[in-house]
Amino acid sequence: MTPRRQSSRAPVTSPAVATVFTTVLTQGPVSRVDVARRTGLSSAAVTKAARPLIEAGYLIERDSEQSGIGRPVSPLEVRADREFFLGVKVTDRELIGVVTDLRARMLVTKFRPLPSRKPDAVVDGIAEMVTALLAESKAYKQRTHCLGVTVAGDVDRDTGHVRYSPFLHWRDVALGGLLAEKIDLEITVDNDVKAITVAERWFGDGVGANSFALVTLGTGIGCGLVVNGGVVAGSHGVAGEIGHIPVFGDGPVCHCGATGCVEAIASTDAIVAQARTATGEAGLTMAEIVTGARLGDTALRKVFARAGVAIGRGLASVANLVGPERIIVSGEGLDAYDLFADEIRETFATQAFGAAAQCELILRPLPFEEWARGAAAIAVQTLFLS
Amino acid sequence: MTPRRQSSRAPVTSPAVATVFTTVLTQGPVSRVDVARRTGLSSAAVTKAARPLIEAGYLIERDSEQSGIGRPVSPLEVRADREFFLGVKVTDRELIGVVTDLRARMLVTKFRPLPSRKPDAVVDGIAEMVTALLAESKAYKQRTHCLGVTVAGDVDRDTGHVRYSPFLHWRDVALGGLLAEKIDLEITVDNDVKAITVAERWFGDGVGANSFALVTLGTGIGCGLVVNGGVVAGSHGVAGEIGHIPVFGDGPVCHCGATGCVEAIASTDAIVAQARTATGEAGLTMAEIVTGARLGDTALRKVFARAGVAIGRGLASVANLVGPERIIVSGEGLDAYDLFADEIRETFATQAFGAAAQCELILRPLPFEEWARGAAAIAVQTLFLS
Ligand SMILES: [Zn+2]
Ligand SMILES: [Zn+2]
Repeated sequence: MTPRRQSSRAPVTSPAVATVFTTVLTQGPVSRVDVARRTGLSSAAVTKAARPLIEAGYLIERDSEQSGIGRPVSPLEVRADREFFLGVKVTDRELIGVVTDLRARMLVTKFRPLPSRKPDAVVDGIAEMVTALLAESKAYKQRTHCLGVTVAGDVDRDTGHVRYSPFLHWRDVALGGLLAEKIDLEITVDNDVKAITVAERWFGDGVGANSFALVTLGTGIGCGLVVNGGVVAGSHGVAGEIGHIPVFGDGPVCHCGATGCVEAIASTDAIVAQARTATGEAGLTMAEIVTGARLGDTALRKVFARAGVAIGRGLASVANLVGPERIIVSGEGLDAYDLFADEIRETFATQAFGAAAQCELILRPLPFEEWARGAAAIAVQTLFLS
Repeated sequence: MTPRRQSSRAPVTSPAVATVFTTVLTQGPVSRVDVARRTGLSSAAVTKAARPLIEAGYLIERDSEQSGIGRPVSPLEVRADREFFLGVKVTDRELIGVVTDLRARMLVTKFRPLPSRKPDAVVDGIAEMVTALLAESKAYKQRTHCLGVTVAGDVDRDTGHVRYSPFLHWRDVALGGLLAEKIDLEITVDNDVKAITVAERWFGDGVGANSFALVTLGTGIGCGLVVNGGVVAGSHGVAGEIGHIPVFGDGPVCHCGATGCVEAIASTDAIVAQARTATGEAGLTMAEIVTGARLGDTALRKVFARAGVAIGRGLASVANLVGPERIIVSGEGLDAYDLFADEIRETFATQAFGAAAQCELILRPLPFEEWARGAAAIAVQTLFLS
């Protein structure tokens, strides 16, 4: 393995520095007094922790503002372009890559088709993607140290091993190690849904929430969970599998072997399969199915309605069991959202238990590049965790 | 309100003292070196934190043991009889009360019928129970300061308000305040399932687990969850409602208004109702149903089998979504466990997603007095939280 670039890293030398940095990063601009109040640190400790971050250019003081009475305050803010981050999401057909700043704002987005799903080909593709992204600006080349890579499936973040990825047909691929042989950056590999959950928690609708769920609809149906202030990882590596909550007793059988899973009824593949069966037209595409349903085809509308009921029952299970403040529903499956929105909301309202119905449902599209932004967010996270 | 007894309380004067005390309480006897290793505190900090607890008689040093090499070690241990705790569980028909020691071991158990479910009558009954429990020993009278009371339903522990308890037909009863007018102890009121989850976490199968679930089968079907090291409380006051996960799409309608909930199929009431329908005998009791099923009655066996499938699907939902290390299944519904054990285990194995099937299922009876022990455990907890 080549030596990892470590120069010019943010001076996160103590837990207090990490706490102040993340507070300003996710909630800034914010005065030192407010940082102290929100973190429980003393004002002196905040000032001490902020100093090296200001000196290294990661935090800046805004121009003094006169507060109502008393001394002027200089809120702290991150200098977002102090460092840049790369994120790459691997799908079964392509790579999506982004450059972001410290606040995970996307500056460049690139798509590259994947000629093969073999690990070597994917590693070569990611290395080429990294080169192309960094070539976009001299500043990126100089001030980028961390790369995040995400994959659907069971990933061990600590070792960079992809234990199982059904869409790539991978088992036990040491992706992190293979990438480190070709790419001179600090590399983090993680599950894709967990990564966009981190992005939501730090830079999105999850900021300030002690608990939330992020549900993605599409080829797979996944869920990132934050509970007691932390991402739920699952003791055996499995958590957030809302797609495999059994909501219908009478089938159909899911690709996982179980019966009546949400994913077996409401994933893109499941919708296509059910639509083909319902119409007898074996060649129907998702686009045709959506169009047909929007034009009012009763059989197709029924397929979406049933999917909406399955999703609503899955969301209610999350609310009843975990009790998150809010559930963010997203994913490419949301393109057809008009076709099952009513069923999702009605089913959720009926199946949520008591006060769990107060859990807010936020529906939001998730452009493909957001997946890569999630990968960049876990790269930002390495500033604080390593 | 009368003044609360505060004398002779354990000197938990800092977070370090609380950490050392809970570590020795739940994992002792344990050497200072091991306490330091497990808590991340320095050896000096452990020694400093232990001193006031030893002086106040809460911790004792065991006789020196010669470790393999080097200096002798004196493991720390709690003096379990330094303080006693009362726990009372309120059911719809009776009160169950216990005296426990500091390690939540039950020393006395008492049952009292409840003549009425009205709040005043329940408060009087609890006050009488407290008097009777303390009268059992002079030591209890002298060294008891805390009482825990638990109720099924939606309870606000901070205020002692019972917001909703279906079995008692209560809404917004200020139970903590009413009790404080009659009982001169520090009083904590909480949900019954959360309380036995605390008991499991500190003194039972949950010790050392970062996450686990405790599922109770019976009149209601509930679940206490520990995730990321903390009990899951639910942002809107609802969490762990495994009884209201929708597992069958085609009904029946649950008392909560939803369709196909686990509780609508597998609670004691649901089993009785389905058995009466299946046999046409409207007067059947649970005892008769269990006996009939054990004797091989096909219709009755089917009712239990279906309940087992519903429970197995509920357990798999918990494993797939939250990924606990283990699930402890308990409750008075376990008396009939032989009638649906196979279906629970088979369904769980089929519906658990991938590695979630490694989640250990522990089946354990839960004698009624264990509910009161849970109430005492939350009383023990007040030593550290107040
Ligand atoms: Zn499945
Ligand atoms: Zn229900």
